[in-house]
Amino acid sequence: MAKKRIFSGMQPSGRFHMGNYQVLTNWIKLQEEYDCIFSIVDWHSLTSSYEDTSKLPERIETMALDWLSAGLDPEKNIIFVQSHVKEHAELHLLLSMMTPLSWLERVPTYKDKLQQLGEMGKEINTYGFLGYPELMTADIILYKANVVPVAEDQLPHLELSREIIRRFANLYKPVFPEPQPILSPLLPGIDGRKMSKSYGNEIPYAAEPDEISARVRLMVTDPQRVKKTDPGNPDICTVYTFHKIFSPEHNEITGHCRNASIGCVECKKRLAEKMIMTLADVHGRRREMAKNPEKIKELLAYGAERARKIAATTMEEVRSVMNLG
Amino acid sequence: MAKKRIFSGMQPSGRFHMGNYQVLTNWIKLQEEYDCIFSIVDWHSLTSSYEDTSKLPERIETMALDWLSAGLDPEKNIIFVQSHVKEHAELHLLLSMMTPLSWLERVPTYKDKLQQLGEMGKEINTYGFLGYPELMTADIILYKANVVPVAEDQLPHLELSREIIRRFANLYKPVFPEPQPILSPLLPGIDGRKMSKSYGNEIPYAAEPDEISARVRLMVTDPQRVKKTDPGNPDICTVYTFHKIFSPEHNEITGHCRNASIGCVECKKRLAEKMIMTLADVHGRRREMAKNPEKIKELLAYGAERARKIAATTMEEVRSVMNLG
Repeated sequence: MAKKRIFSGMQPSGRFHMGNYQVLTNWIKLQEEYDCIFSIVDWHSLTSSYEDTSKLPERIETMALDWLSAGLDPEKNIIFVQSHVKEHAELHLLLSMMTPLSWLERVPTYKDKLQQLGEMGKEINTYGFLGYPELMTADIILYKANVVPVAEDQLPHLELSREIIRRFANLYKPVFPEPQPILSPLLPGIDGRKMSKSYGNEIPYAAEPDEISARVRLMVTDPQRVKKTDPGNPDICTVYTFHKIFSPEHNEITGHCRNASIGCVECKKRLAEKMIMTLADVHGRRREMAKNPEKIKELLAYGAERARKIAATTMEEVRSVMNLG
Repeated sequence: MAKKRIFSGMQPSGRFHMGNYQVLTNWIKLQEEYDCIFSIVDWHSLTSSYEDTSKLPERIETMALDWLSAGLDPEKNIIFVQSHVKEHAELHLLLSMMTPLSWLERVPTYKDKLQQLGEMGKEINTYGFLGYPELMTADIILYKANVVPVAEDQLPHLELSREIIRRFANLYKPVFPEPQPILSPLLPGIDGRKMSKSYGNEIPYAAEPDEISARVRLMVTDPQRVKKTDPGNPDICTVYTFHKIFSPEHNEITGHCRNASIGCVECKKRLAEKMIMTLADVHGRRREMAKNPEKIKELLAYGAERARKIAATTMEEVRSVMNLG
């Protein structure tokens, strides 16, 4: 039986952080079991960052470097930049014709994000921002992906994609499988909210040991644990969420916290050490790879070529069932 | 000095009617003075007719035949089908990122057309329908058109295009000239409203003499002229609007109407004769051309190739100023 296909993407929205790294380690596990297509979705990044695109080329290269140094295999997977495959734009336009406006308006994250970014002074009440889940649908179905690794807050996007797929099938012919989600665990930011550069609560993936230690020291802990001698609740502590991922002995930490046998300062110190250790290897590989940017460009061109082949075949089918030339 | 460039398009939304023919005769005049690009905008037709696309290929061929037989020159002008030039979709997507939703929502024709087509049972409250003027903007500026022949009701669309162009220039660099409108005269339908197949008030361009006579007999006239002996007011009579275009002696007709020296029945008969005469020639050419559909396909492919060359150059410039790969 052929492997199931996965599509997933990340916006080159700035420095890669540990939340992205966590998603990436998940992808690296998936690459063994699935036929994976991973895209640096630069067009998507325009939905919230169209105003200043000067750093985009650098950010794309950096992201490719981050992916490859973390262990994403450019032969096992198709790794490419979204804007290199124009079919994404064509399919997005065609899907737009049959997607009720209300479906897009009612996506829960839409109004939330509008408000959040609005408060940060970003003017993103644009036609393209509303169309974000439409473009995401085009990305996924262009490759007939069966499975999409998503965080919980993206589930409504995927539900919308399935609705659009069903509508397409009813209007024309069934061309696309309905993709199923695989939930990806998410690392919170140091303030306990979703980790995001826009919130300023991230730990950069490329952080040096000193920066990691500094960021971990700022992490929110159980607010009820005021003094070192107060027992703590690791279940509501951001530091502990990180320990679960980076410290094999995290069960021991739970005990220390509940018994107040170590304080938050010591607990954070132990976490920072673990994180620094884990990252030392990938950072080394990253430095090596960064010496050869031409090689990165070549790998992305190779990925785009492979992606285009699949995309072109899908679009032929789409045009045919829609009676377009 | 280089000629100014015109872009214009028509939707292959069904049988060509005399209103379109009137626009076309205007284009035929313009082809002498301007560098003209005319497009059969099939993607646009999906904004209101995505539900049944089965007749689209036939309608595109018919429209090409109508244009060519009426005298639109495929060498002097670039004549092509929109969906053959994928750059329209790419530019549309990029523009969408920087276009405030409110700019599209406030286009006056948007809510009118939503309501009108809604009343006819068409479900077009879609993302694509809202984006209609965005796609129209992409069409025009992809060729850096300086001039766009439009009917009066499309002026707000063109104003929006100019706003988008200015926004693009402010955010990135000035790449596109601001296109100026040339107002095209519009023939009304037989009920006095805008001629449109969706209103059922059209006179088909391909109509045989009997059909022309029958449709002219149904035309609304001055409602105050009840009896043949009542004097009429040609200024508010649809029949007279047509006489002005098809009858060289239309001044004489004005007199006959105001003096009640001929009745509406006779007046309509004279109009029908003039229209039948005018169309006899083009219909003859059309029948000849229809014998060779391969030739039509070849001409459209030739046009698309020429259009693509200009579009590709523009997109290189757009990608460069937007820092896209």
